[in-house]
Amino acid sequence: MRFVVGVMGPAKARKKDLDNARFLGELIARRGWVVLTGGRDVGVMDAACEGAKRVGGSLTIGVLPTAKDRVSRHVDVPIITEMGSGRNNINVLTSHVVVACGLSGSGTVSEVALAVKAGKPVILVEASQADLAFFRKLGRRLVTAASSPEEAIERIMKQMDGHRYRGRAAEQAECGELSM
Amino acid sequence: MRFVVGVMGPAKARKKDLDNARFLGELIARRGWVVLTGGRDVGVMDAACEGAKRVGGSLTIGVLPTAKDRVSRHVDVPIITEMGSGRNNINVLTSHVVVACGLSGSGTVSEVALAVKAGKPVILVEASQADLAFFRKLGRRLVTAASSPEEAIERIMKQMDGHRYRGRAAEQAECGELSM
Amino acid sequence: MRFVVGVMGPAKARKKDLDNARFLGELIARRGWVVLTGGRDVGVMDAACEGAKRVGGSLTIGVLPTAKDRVSRHVDVPIITEMGSGRNNINVLTSHVVVACGLSGSGTVSEVALAVKAGKPVILVEASQADLAFFRKLGRRLVTAASSPEEAIERIMKQMDGHRYRGRAAEQAECGELSM
Amino acid sequence: MRFVVGVMGPAKARKKDLDNARFLGELIARRGWVVLTGGRDVGVMDAACEGAKRVGGSLTIGVLPTAKDRVSRHVDVPIITEMGSGRNNINVLTSHVVVACGLSGSGTVSEVALAVKAGKPVILVEASQADLAFFRKLGRRLVTAASSPEEAIERIMKQMDGHRYRGRAAEQAECGELSM
Repeated sequence: MRFVVGVMGPAKARKKDLDNARFLGELIARRGWVVLTGGRDVGVMDAACEGAKRVGGSLTIGVLPTAKDRVSRHVDVPIITEMGSGRNNINVLTSHVVVACGLSGSGTVSEVALAVKAGKPVILVEASQADLAFFRKLGRRLVTAASSPEEAIERIMKQMDGHRYRGRAAEQAECGELSM
Repeated sequence: MRFVVGVMGPAKARKKDLDNARFLGELIARRGWVVLTGGRDVGVMDAACEGAKRVGGSLTIGVLPTAKDRVSRHVDVPIITEMGSGRNNINVLTSHVVVACGLSGSGTVSEVALAVKAGKPVILVEASQADLAFFRKLGRRLVTAASSPEEAIERIMKQMDGHRYRGRAAEQAECGELSM
Repeated sequence: MRFVVGVMGPAKARKKDLDNARFLGELIARRGWVVLTGGRDVGVMDAACEGAKRVGGSLTIGVLPTAKDRVSRHVDVPIITEMGSGRNNINVLTSHVVVACGLSGSGTVSEVALAVKAGKPVILVEASQADLAFFRKLGRRLVTAASSPEEAIERIMKQMDGHRYRGRAAEQAECGELSM
Repeated sequence: MRFVVGVMGPAKARKKDLDNARFLGELIARRGWVVLTGGRDVGVMDAACEGAKRVGGSLTIGVLPTAKDRVSRHVDVPIITEMGSGRNNINVLTSHVVVACGLSGSGTVSEVALAVKAGKPVILVEASQADLAFFRKLGRRLVTAASSPEEAIERIMKQMDGHRYRGRAAEQAECGELSM
């Protein structure tokens, strides 16, 4: 089984969030992990998959709201749910960890809340103090902050070591993917 | 078609939120509107339906996460989704307006966010300043505050007059239900 | 809790199936039961609700595929799922018994199969021998045939007496609805 | 975007269906296509993924009913829906073509019906005459029969050439996967 990192964020994103998502996608793919997004060809969804596909042998999964949405051309396997925003719960349930780049969208906020509900670790990248306070109150130890994509990756590595996920070496050995 | 008010709130709720939900349920039912909740036999879900069933001729709908959940005995029609928290989107899509009593639960937060995403008006009853600020930034004019159940009802009445919903009289005439 | 009968059938239905659905809706409503359909303004869905609304105090629930579908004007409470055909599973899970009027549609066939999967009793009204053979092989004792709406109702009554559902009198007493 | 073949069939399958599913999985993987199943560790779901994983560089996706189901160890990426049989619609919407090995299960029958509803081509491998007649009446030209896994693959190749899917060479070139 592959380790799946969900990268969430708004369709209409700031340049900073797009840059973070793109770099995150690349870092995730370099570790041989799977990038999962909402699959559309806009915003953070598109950027994270674009970053991942810079890395040979990477895999990107996009969980699409409907069959009519334009799929990001950086998505390898679009999962078609025809469920609209109902698909947000599938995004977080399928991800072993959720990283949010930008919290300006209501879809992303719902995903972070659903991730907390499902007991998934959530990392907020460059979140404002107010947003961070809101979600830490909601999710307590499940929600952490990262000031950069690199820090988000380090945080995931730590979670994998301490928790139920296999460490980096085992994952790489199994997947036969590139290291950074 | 009946006018449906979704009452959302945590399973583990404060006494204040339970009291608000119970009174809200009653006020909604008195207008001949339908009370919709998450349907379980706990917290705000249960209290809102309990309040509604004090009123003769009322109708309560509960949208249940799974077939195994214990249904509130105050729910007339349990809608069984077998979708876990994925059912939260159905709750808000089916409601013409969403009222939240307490925002301490991640399920409720996801519902408010999904309601904003779906363009539904949301009323937060006795929310903290921080929570209110968070959701007003997210939902702008869709999200409003009410300091009591009565104020929430007044707000709904105003929205119905100004918007696409029929006014109070028409609804009552059609439904043949009690007025307050 | 109210007793819910799901009436399923094609959007493009034969006159015979529409007539059966309309009469079934009426008979269901006369017993104080709830009619549940796919909610759209066409075919068997529309006809069953139309029949039910001939009866004072009846309740019709329509589980709609999307927010854009035209709702039957005979539906009291449209449940908006935004799930396309994924909503078919909710239809059968929410119904205590499923009655199919016409099996020419793939949506209806999926609903009968999902009902069997969920262990719900299914009654096929005026089905062909081939269709009946197919579904009896699939669902064994869960699937029975009825040659008319009246026979379908009799079959439901028997199932209610023998099984977990309350008998007719109790249901009527609780619901305060009309008898036939 | 990768070409996805859904392999459906009962959890309690005949040896013949398991053998067909295993060989089908292998043939699909050899062409560089993705195998999609219901993801559990039983029956046709498990066998199809097992066959695929005999081929280096293959990818298997399993769309799981709940987070509690035991995942087949031959699934690379489990998509967790927490939707029970509601996930059947996602299976068929995500597959470019659906192949059924055995029609004794109500879940599989619902998937074939939902595939027809969604306009997806369906291939029934070694189906009985009665089952074939039933589904050809339902799905007309969408539903075809194959007497073996090899014939199913040939049929898919023809559909890809004639239809909206890219031909074999383009897919292989893009995916960089093995040919048979």
